[in-house]
Amino acid sequence: MAAVICFALQVQAQDKDSVMIRKIYDEALLHGECYGNLRYLCKNIGPRLTGSAGAEKAVAYTRSLMEKTGIGKTFLQPVKVPHWERGTPESCFMTYTFPEEEKAATYGNKMLRMRKSQFRITALGMSVGTGEQGVSGQVVEVKSFEQLDSLGAAAVRGKIVFFNHPFKPTFINTFDAYGEAARYRGNAAIRAGKLGATAAVVRSMTFALDDNPHTGAMRYVDTIPKIPACAISTVGADSLSKMLKMVANYNFSFTQTCTQGEDVMSSNVIGEIKGTTHPEEVILVGGHLDSWDLAEGAHDDGAGCMQTIEVMRLFSALGYKPQRTLRFVMFMNEENGLKGGEAYAATYGKEKHVLAIETDAGGFVPRGFSSDMEDSKHRQFESYARYFKPYLTDNFDRSGGGADISPLKKLGVPVAGLIPDSQRYFDCHHSALDTFEHVNRRELELGAAALASLIYLFSEHGL
Amino acid sequence: MAAVICFALQVQAQDKDSVMIRKIYDEALLHGECYGNLRYLCKNIGPRLTGSAGAEKAVAYTRSLMEKTGIGKTFLQPVKVPHWERGTPESCFMTYTFPEEEKAATYGNKMLRMRKSQFRITALGMSVGTGEQGVSGQVVEVKSFEQLDSLGAAAVRGKIVFFNHPFKPTFINTFDAYGEAARYRGNAAIRAGKLGATAAVVRSMTFALDDNPHTGAMRYVDTIPKIPACAISTVGADSLSKMLKMVANYNFSFTQTCTQGEDVMSSNVIGEIKGTTHPEEVILVGGHLDSWDLAEGAHDDGAGCMQTIEVMRLFSALGYKPQRTLRFVMFMNEENGLKGGEAYAATYGKEKHVLAIETDAGGFVPRGFSSDMEDSKHRQFESYARYFKPYLTDNFDRSGGGADISPLKKLGVPVAGLIPDSQRYFDCHHSALDTFEHVNRRELELGAAALASLIYLFSEHGL
Repeated sequence: MAAVICFALQVQAQDKDSVMIRKIYDEALLHGECYGNLRYLCKNIGPRLTGSAGAEKAVAYTRSLMEKTGIGKTFLQPVKVPHWERGTPESCFMTYTFPEEEKAATYGNKMLRMRKSQFRITALGMSVGTGEQGVSGQVVEVKSFEQLDSLGAAAVRGKIVFFNHPFKPTFINTFDAYGEAARYRGNAAIRAGKLGATAAVVRSMTFALDDNPHTGAMRYVDTIPKIPACAISTVGADSLSKMLKMVANYNFSFTQTCTQGEDVMSSNVIGEIKGTTHPEEVILVGGHLDSWDLAEGAHDDGAGCMQTIEVMRLFSALGYKPQRTLRFVMFMNEENGLKGGEAYAATYGKEKHVLAIETDAGGFVPRGFSSDMEDSKHRQFESYARYFKPYLTDNFDRSGGGADISPLKKLGVPVAGLIPDSQRYFDCHHSALDTFEHVNRRELELGAAALASLIYLFSEHGL
Repeated sequence: MAAVICFALQVQAQDKDSVMIRKIYDEALLHGECYGNLRYLCKNIGPRLTGSAGAEKAVAYTRSLMEKTGIGKTFLQPVKVPHWERGTPESCFMTYTFPEEEKAATYGNKMLRMRKSQFRITALGMSVGTGEQGVSGQVVEVKSFEQLDSLGAAAVRGKIVFFNHPFKPTFINTFDAYGEAARYRGNAAIRAGKLGATAAVVRSMTFALDDNPHTGAMRYVDTIPKIPACAISTVGADSLSKMLKMVANYNFSFTQTCTQGEDVMSSNVIGEIKGTTHPEEVILVGGHLDSWDLAEGAHDDGAGCMQTIEVMRLFSALGYKPQRTLRFVMFMNEENGLKGGEAYAATYGKEKHVLAIETDAGGFVPRGFSSDMEDSKHRQFESYARYFKPYLTDNFDRSGGGADISPLKKLGVPVAGLIPDSQRYFDCHHSALDTFEHVNRRELELGAAALASLIYLFSEHGL
């Protein structure tokens, strides 16, 4: 009999939850505001590189949006952040002089003596500049670190190393291709600098074959000379590779005037709705407010920020009072420092966070959620997939949370992430194409609704 | 012991199939040709309305692509098709004269006497024209057929009926919203004509709020006067609706010079690979070659055609010899007649078709497959979902096949369809936006690989 009652209660609870989730989706799809808010963020504020005026405008704008939802309280958490600037637009050329005997063979009767080819590049984030005079020299092309190391210092010293490692198309989840390739962006300057190279050029992190270079963070270590590093577009990379096979006598040069300034103060933007029955238990949801400077940061991560604020708005519109405390966080400086995520964990990590969810994989159609938590908790997490089947968002896996909440994870907090479809993400990621026009209204809204629904479930039932 | 051997054989079979499917995906993602072929179809041939020169060019082009795969044989099946033409571009205006007393109230001190507003419309496919002089009159706006019928003939006679029935955003699968709303496009002229209206204007079938009208097929019945019918853009529909509430004294007029010509001859394009062990069993896969005339028919259904031909190419590249006969069909005239599908079933329907699969829901990221077949067969169908889990394409449901294979279904053939993600489909469907630029290379290739994998499974194991 107890079992029967228990089952009946379960069914009732499931029904109540399913009903609430349907209400969340209806509100998001009928009266959603995240798409309009994202348009404002992209078109009226634009790029939001950490330390820039745009980033500070975005702090004020997202705080005002949170306040407009009419629930909870909002506050800023001061964060000390790096201040890297791109400087003037980069330039990149390859000049080659044809030896007398090659002219006819290579270019028929055009009888060229010299040719100058231009490439589109972008400085990698946190790179040193080249100075106004640029860096020049011969290029050594490699496909991998292993190939570079086998060439050794003798072949590399005084030259520019070109890492032409492509994204592997056979990965189904494009983040796996990114995971495999992005180490070349991150470590190019270290690995080339160690062998005495003067600079590093990295093939852009994308499947797309076009002329948009993709930036992104790189790093140095103190023991190795800091050489400038840039990304070249995929079309440029293919073209450069072809030229290097064709001509022996050339000069490659590029100029980037990026600079690392003094650290500045910025903020995480935080909204909070106190829990009614378990106010001491915190559920965090967030994205990152900073973006790269080449575009509007629409997918990365304007989408995630606007979805996070939409969750607040949805709960306000539906009059939902969460049982546990919800915290909505716009993290600053995910792209080139993670100072916002670290500061949050340092200050608030001692509170009992039952779950932290990040949305930072683009505003594409949601496919499910990923988690990183102990087995018993993951079983509960995964059991919620059933609620998302009608919304085609029931792929639940264990592929982890997000960068901003990784400092919380280190403190033992269970973490999760929204999984949007990944196929188009790297077409625009970190490039001039990451604009509002590449975001679809319904896809963005469905992501916000999925996020709100998952948070509702954990707010009701804990973890 | 027998059970153990049986299990071992099953595991072995599954492994062999999984290995082959991985090969199919690798070939599609590494050397896929469907995206480049689609570019040619869209940019060098373009619109392919049944009976047009473009449609015939597409017949020749796709036959040549099939031949280029180097396997099987190709042939044309003659099909008699309708020949509807749009004529000169449509025009649509609303002119209104302000009564003296309304001027100040409505337009401040602008003191307008008359104002002419322009709307973007497109003739619905198969509609009669208005003649060069157009059709003019007052507009009666309704949200539904029920509202129209309750108004009755007295309110409608001699007027233009404006069906402003919106797509419902709360459907998760956008084809459900289409299913709910498209009857207004199909039946507008019949329902309005029955009550003595002079014309029908239909809100475009899309969630997107923009100024692109979406065409599509409509129909007449012989017992009711044939009145002209057009679609108005969603922005135009909202604007017209607002104006109708504001002003009493207006004249609405539109002109479309579309004409229905004599039937002409066209073709289905068919490729065939004979089965090695069960040549008498046929598995059909196809899409439709014709498109609407407003754009390139990239998603509808250039994508499906190029995926179908890619399946041939994949099997050729991998040296796969199917056990059952595979037939690859480019159906003509899906959009405004279904004559290709009917002709195929009439001529070849008596052969044993074990399965017919259509791909006609856009070249977006594949989510799974739908079927319409008896329970026992569906259980086998559904059991194959496990092979598609690593490819995130394992949503198998029973939502049916496609239009072109519906005549085969009537003959008892089990049918199925590729299910791509539906969120963006109606943004471009039947409008000027259905261009190559809206197709993503990887999404298209993943769909082709999924299709080839499913066909491989049924070719090996039957149904």
